[in-house]
Amino acid sequence: VTSSFTDLYVQVQQFYAGQVQHLDAMRADEFAATFTKDAVFDHSPGNPPFEGREAIADEMRSYQQKRYAENPAQRRHWFHMLRVLPQDDGSIVSEYYAMLLMTKPGEPLAGPAMSYAVRDVLVFEAGELLTRERRVVPDAAR
Amino acid sequence: VTSSFTDLYVQVQQFYAGQVQHLDAMRADEFAATFTKDAVFDHSPGNPPFEGREAIADEMRSYQQKRYAENPAQRRHWFHMLRVLPQDDGSIVSEYYAMLLMTKPGEPLAGPAMSYAVRDVLVFEAGELLTRERRVVPDAAR
Amino acid sequence: VTSSFTDLYVQVQQFYAGQVQHLDAMRADEFAATFTKDAVFDHSPGNPPFEGREAIADEMRSYQQKRYAENPAQRRHWFHMLRVLPQDDGSIVSEYYAMLLMTKPGEPLAGPAMSYAVRDVLVFEAGELLTRERRVVPDAAR
Repeated sequence: VTSSFTDLYVQVQQFYAGQVQHLDAMRADEFAATFTKDAVFDHSPGNPPFEGREAIADEMRSYQQKRYAENPAQRRHWFHMLRVLPQDDGSIVSEYYAMLLMTKPGEPLAGPAMSYAVRDVLVFEAGELLTRERRVVPDAAR
Repeated sequence: VTSSFTDLYVQVQQFYAGQVQHLDAMRADEFAATFTKDAVFDHSPGNPPFEGREAIADEMRSYQQKRYAENPAQRRHWFHMLRVLPQDDGSIVSEYYAMLLMTKPGEPLAGPAMSYAVRDVLVFEAGELLTRERRVVPDAAR
Repeated sequence: VTSSFTDLYVQVQQFYAGQVQHLDAMRADEFAATFTKDAVFDHSPGNPPFEGREAIADEMRSYQQKRYAENPAQRRHWFHMLRVLPQDDGSIVSEYYAMLLMTKPGEPLAGPAMSYAVRDVLVFEAGELLTRERRVVPDAAR
């Protein structure tokens, strides 16, 4: 393990922490800005993936409206058990588990979690880490 | 990302791992000792924060007595999605999600979790990382 | 904190991420290969521990058959709140919390989690990190 792998691993952790803050605060544009302009986001197996920042932000907004306008909740995405796999082309494959905790207004507890496995491709653009590809497989869809 | 940011990020992870061991084992004094002498601990919005190690330890003991003497459980605090933000004055802002799992005696499962967002200010004192400020917002209080 | 502690901490995180992928995909031999040949695996207090890779793989297969053949689920093990404690003899004590999320076929949510505290002894063999000892205490058994 070289120190640059260590730096990268920590950078990926810090990157995801910022990304989920945007996601859970429903800041669609800021969330989309953590993806590359041509990013592919596949969060629903069997449906076509979303491509590009605008599509990702639009999808996030419409998903929120459908699911959370009438049934609001504070969502918290946890990404963990992170495997960072640097590739020869400079991109980084990142595999992890995701869990979604939701606390509904007036309820003291987050309901049972939703569980996912995720595979990202990350890239550096102008020194900044961005998600170029995301494939989310809900455990409920297995 | 400099290697010193990487060192700091990992140090904060290791620090929290030790801090929650004290918390979950209900070692009030050891837990309080992970805070600065003048620390401010605000874990209940709408109520005044606790100030100083003694107040933190006392609060922890009384909270335990109220909540867990008649209704015991093995608590496990998980802190994650950590964003470490070094400040110009040498302090470190740390933002993260927290989850509390509780396993009651005789029950096989941890009930649904409680979910929180936390913002700490950490400082080094004599080379040791300590919490100077903690603001906990339960998702149930939003 | 020297940079080598930082490297080690991250290496342990990456190691566990790979180990749980084998565990949750029920690859018994690959999982067992993340332990030393003479490893001791104690995951059930009151019962004798399993010793060696073959016993670990066999135990994993029989556990799966007993518990999951008739009651299948996608399991996800999360290891977190990691404390890495290098020892004088070159081994590494690693303490952490574990959580098991299970999603049953056809159900959208992972049920309430199971919660554990774990203490491992890790060693390097030919540059590779391996688990030499694992003691798992389920919170439900306290």
